[in-house]
Amino acid sequence: MADEVILLDYWPSMFGMGTTKIALAEKGVAYEYKETDPRAKTSSLIETNPIHKKIPVLIHKGKQICEPLIQLEYIDEVWSDTYPILPSDPYQKAQARFWGAFIDKKFYDPSWKVWGTTGEEQVTAKKELLEHFKTLETELGDKTYYGGDVFGFVDIALMGYYSWFKAIEKFGEFSIEAEFPKLTQWTKRCLERESVVMSIADSDKIVEYAYVLRRKLRAE
Amino acid sequence: MADEVILLDYWPSMFGMGTTKIALAEKGVAYEYKETDPRAKTSSLIETNPIHKKIPVLIHKGKQICEPLIQLEYIDEVWSDTYPILPSDPYQKAQARFWGAFIDKKFYDPSWKVWGTTGEEQVTAKKELLEHFKTLETELGDKTYYGGDVFGFVDIALMGYYSWFKAIEKFGEFSIEAEFPKLTQWTKRCLERESVVMSIADSDKIVEYAYVLRRKLRAE
Repeated sequence: MADEVILLDYWPSMFGMGTTKIALAEKGVAYEYKETDPRAKTSSLIETNPIHKKIPVLIHKGKQICEPLIQLEYIDEVWSDTYPILPSDPYQKAQARFWGAFIDKKFYDPSWKVWGTTGEEQVTAKKELLEHFKTLETELGDKTYYGGDVFGFVDIALMGYYSWFKAIEKFGEFSIEAEFPKLTQWTKRCLERESVVMSIADSDKIVEYAYVLRRKLRAE
Repeated sequence: MADEVILLDYWPSMFGMGTTKIALAEKGVAYEYKETDPRAKTSSLIETNPIHKKIPVLIHKGKQICEPLIQLEYIDEVWSDTYPILPSDPYQKAQARFWGAFIDKKFYDPSWKVWGTTGEEQVTAKKELLEHFKTLETELGDKTYYGGDVFGFVDIALMGYYSWFKAIEKFGEFSIEAEFPKLTQWTKRCLERESVVMSIADSDKIVEYAYVLRRKLRAE
């Protein structure tokens, strides 16, 4: 076991997908990847994350760490001698945590409603999501990355969600690029990083997956 | 301005109330307290927390830090030479963050529904809240405090919510002490700390406040 790192994750997961993988890639940490469908509630997921039964689950030296943003902090602390994910200044750190949590808390619910529902529920969710995009874009301003010139915590949180952009645009019938040019340029800059490219899912496959899931949701 | 610390908070707030005040007390940090009713959405709240417009807001050296758990981390980092709030081991720290977030995310919604709603909505909320209490009690096990012998992050998060226990018992018609003896003993041990006693609101006043708010909610 020793220093072994295992990641239980699911390729199209809206949050698991990128966040933790990008952080491990930035740190150059090798790990074993175990594809784990959270809808199947496999025994490995129940054993390793009995409280939320959610992916991603990071297992290091036989101990599990749950929740993507908590995993980012853990990874940053354990592999502290390589690429820093959080800034060292307490105030900058608090701000990064605030905006990471903003993405984590605010994006998920309206996003799945944009592709998973119809009618008024979808319209309300789209409106809400666009407001959150606007808030985040305004906060970014003219910076290269969230923290300035350095790719870090908030950028990773955002890119962990990026693969769903195309599906959200398709079902929500709007263009992120047209409505949020700065947000778009931001994600484009992040997409230049190898850690991101190697960690996130293919947007077209996510669109296909969203179609399947949408049909399933409607049948239920 | 210099090293000035200001706390915008509201005495009966379910989360603001205790958490940040307990942490500042443990660290021995003097601060100016400004009573701020979040329902009034005062201009000071809009200026200092424009995103969530929620209390508590911690202002240090003219810069605001929002969200109670992020404030705890900030306080622990800035005043690092006194009482440590988070453990130093990355795994223990991740666990403390997980359970702090569990209290922060899971308790609020069912709690206000227990005193603020009736009928099936209240019954469902009560059932949910009791499950969360059970989960937290099981996680505590036979330890003195969440982290073992040391009062810290998770204990502070719990005690920031404690003043609402009596109101929840009253409207939910159950006894926390009878159903969760270990949780009760845990809060009693925490109540022995001066930082807690001087920071949390009076439970009877919270019951009165819940009555008023309940009438208001029904009238709306």
